[in-house]
Amino acid sequence: MALHSMRKARECWNFIRALHQGPDAAPVPQKDAVKRIFSGIQPTGIPHLGNYLGAIESWVKLQDEHDSVLYSIVDLHSITVPQDPAILRQSILDMTAALLACGINPEKSILFQQSQVSEHTQLSWILTCMVRLPRLQHLHQWKAKTAKEKQNGTVGLLTYPVLQAADILLYKSTHVPVGEDQVQHMELTQDLAQSFNKKYGEFFPVPKAILTSMKKVKSLRDPSAKMSKSDPDKLATVRITDSPEEIVQKFRKALTDFTSEVTYEPASRGGVSNLVAIHAAVAGLPVEEVVRRSAGMDTARYKLVVAEAVIEKFAPIKREIEKLKMNKDHLEKVLQIGSAKAKELAYPVCQEAKKLVGFL
Amino acid sequence: MALHSMRKARECWNFIRALHQGPDAAPVPQKDAVKRIFSGIQPTGIPHLGNYLGAIESWVKLQDEHDSVLYSIVDLHSITVPQDPAILRQSILDMTAALLACGINPEKSILFQQSQVSEHTQLSWILTCMVRLPRLQHLHQWKAKTAKEKQNGTVGLLTYPVLQAADILLYKSTHVPVGEDQVQHMELTQDLAQSFNKKYGEFFPVPKAILTSMKKVKSLRDPSAKMSKSDPDKLATVRITDSPEEIVQKFRKALTDFTSEVTYEPASRGGVSNLVAIHAAVAGLPVEEVVRRSAGMDTARYKLVVAEAVIEKFAPIKREIEKLKMNKDHLEKVLQIGSAKAKELAYPVCQEAKKLVGFL
Repeated sequence: MALHSMRKARECWNFIRALHQGPDAAPVPQKDAVKRIFSGIQPTGIPHLGNYLGAIESWVKLQDEHDSVLYSIVDLHSITVPQDPAILRQSILDMTAALLACGINPEKSILFQQSQVSEHTQLSWILTCMVRLPRLQHLHQWKAKTAKEKQNGTVGLLTYPVLQAADILLYKSTHVPVGEDQVQHMELTQDLAQSFNKKYGEFFPVPKAILTSMKKVKSLRDPSAKMSKSDPDKLATVRITDSPEEIVQKFRKALTDFTSEVTYEPASRGGVSNLVAIHAAVAGLPVEEVVRRSAGMDTARYKLVVAEAVIEKFAPIKREIEKLKMNKDHLEKVLQIGSAKAKELAYPVCQEAKKLVGFL
Repeated sequence: MALHSMRKARECWNFIRALHQGPDAAPVPQKDAVKRIFSGIQPTGIPHLGNYLGAIESWVKLQDEHDSVLYSIVDLHSITVPQDPAILRQSILDMTAALLACGINPEKSILFQQSQVSEHTQLSWILTCMVRLPRLQHLHQWKAKTAKEKQNGTVGLLTYPVLQAADILLYKSTHVPVGEDQVQHMELTQDLAQSFNKKYGEFFPVPKAILTSMKKVKSLRDPSAKMSKSDPDKLATVRITDSPEEIVQKFRKALTDFTSEVTYEPASRGGVSNLVAIHAAVAGLPVEEVVRRSAGMDTARYKLVVAEAVIEKFAPIKREIEKLKMNKDHLEKVLQIGSAKAKELAYPVCQEAKKLVGFL
């Protein structure tokens, strides 16, 4: 049963992957000079386990495999919901420290702050004038978010997928690592690239999604929900810089069911399967292997094993974050240098786009 | 009856003026170093009589009365509806030539191209994240335009009033000459300035509207509609560069009623009152005086008198436009220098706003 679920999950995964990458989908190749990879992360401060396994870890891999990789701390996106300015500023620096500590290397990839490159909002305006309102109103995320905010979402929350498209197209990116919840936004980006090319002549590559192989990490307290920084239940989310005691406590309280056996059955046993997935990811082992090794162990004991693996994984990263956080000037410098490099790529593309539109 | 209408119109006008300028409304003062005036005009190419009398003529006056005046050719706004790139480019230069020929003096005011100052879209994004969707959907202009476009307006058409607010606030403008159709957008700008100040501390002056004294010029073929560049009836709109023959023909065919007397009764006699208003404006005379001088004249004869006055007014401007249009490099240079001056003012304000938001 457990193995069947795993096979099923893998099949589904391959299907989704083929769907998004198109007929010429292939495994990520060796160091590649043709592709340009772009991805962004919101400055939510110190990342949690879900950010790490869902995005950052694959970012580190991608920068080793490709020549031209850009990672943006997308602070313009973060103000689509209310922010305290001092906390936002700190969160930008914390995220920078965390990314560096996790292995993002500014020599291998361009790590930059979105708001420092003015071309993002310029291209975004051009694209905003190419999209119809219903297209944005029908996006799942807008519908979900406005339902939650009682129809009170800002216009920024409605239009940020267009800014996201500009983020990607501004660098003539060819590939974008995205989560499954971003598939609709990638389609919008692709459509906008095509519309622009149709109106003004071939200019933007139509970027492809790279679906990273790690599934979304779930909340430790509600395996039906994503692990999230804003979860009101503090036990639901493990941050990279949590102390070993906090990590043990959070896993100990992780919601599982009344079956004590360790299996991987995401559909029927969300809680324990989330633990298995986390365990496999941080230990760098296949899910099957993790399940095999846990044979005979009850879930109470297993929670401590997973906590231990997470503590071990994060210990050196936590130390490095603490060191980096003590040097604010260095972090600001990293962002400045990265943003200058990004601007060097963005400026000519934006100028060319403005020329095509008729401004220049 | 005619005089009663005039008095009524003047009373209404003073009322609207007081309403917009607030209790401390006062006539425009002598050369004033405290105020900063901002206004924008879309690059629609060669302006028509309505643009000239409704905006440009008062711009020339304002630059003589105030120390700090900015006029922007708002090309970012023009792409909220479809544009042909080559025509748009030409229209930007034509509008520049026309503004210079009409008397806008780059030594007295900063004449610049909006898309050359990247701070406009940057501040616009910040403000976009402070406004709720229904606020924009309830603006008259969006409702009217989407009704016309069969709900098919672009998101740019929805959000351009926020960009307009950014245009104004970016220069910490204190006064904005606007037409009556822009009153709602000015209120949005004022509200956004206040919201920003409330959230981040006193930063933007809350700008006031200056309602210019000239009423909207009406279509010569339908006195219930504004004179407009896009009017499908070519006889409805007089362009500054029309030949004397064209101007005579358009006024000759101007729609009036079956009363031959010349009076000023906008409510009941829209056609002839429009001619009187145009005549008064181009001749620089009060409406009463124009009516007095036309006593005993029938409307057919009067149309030729008005045409003559318009031809006389536009002749030197037309010559100057033709001269300027021959020197494209000069026009581009004027815009570049103006845009650099505008950027000098915009950059520190935008940086400060970004700091307040938490980006820097």
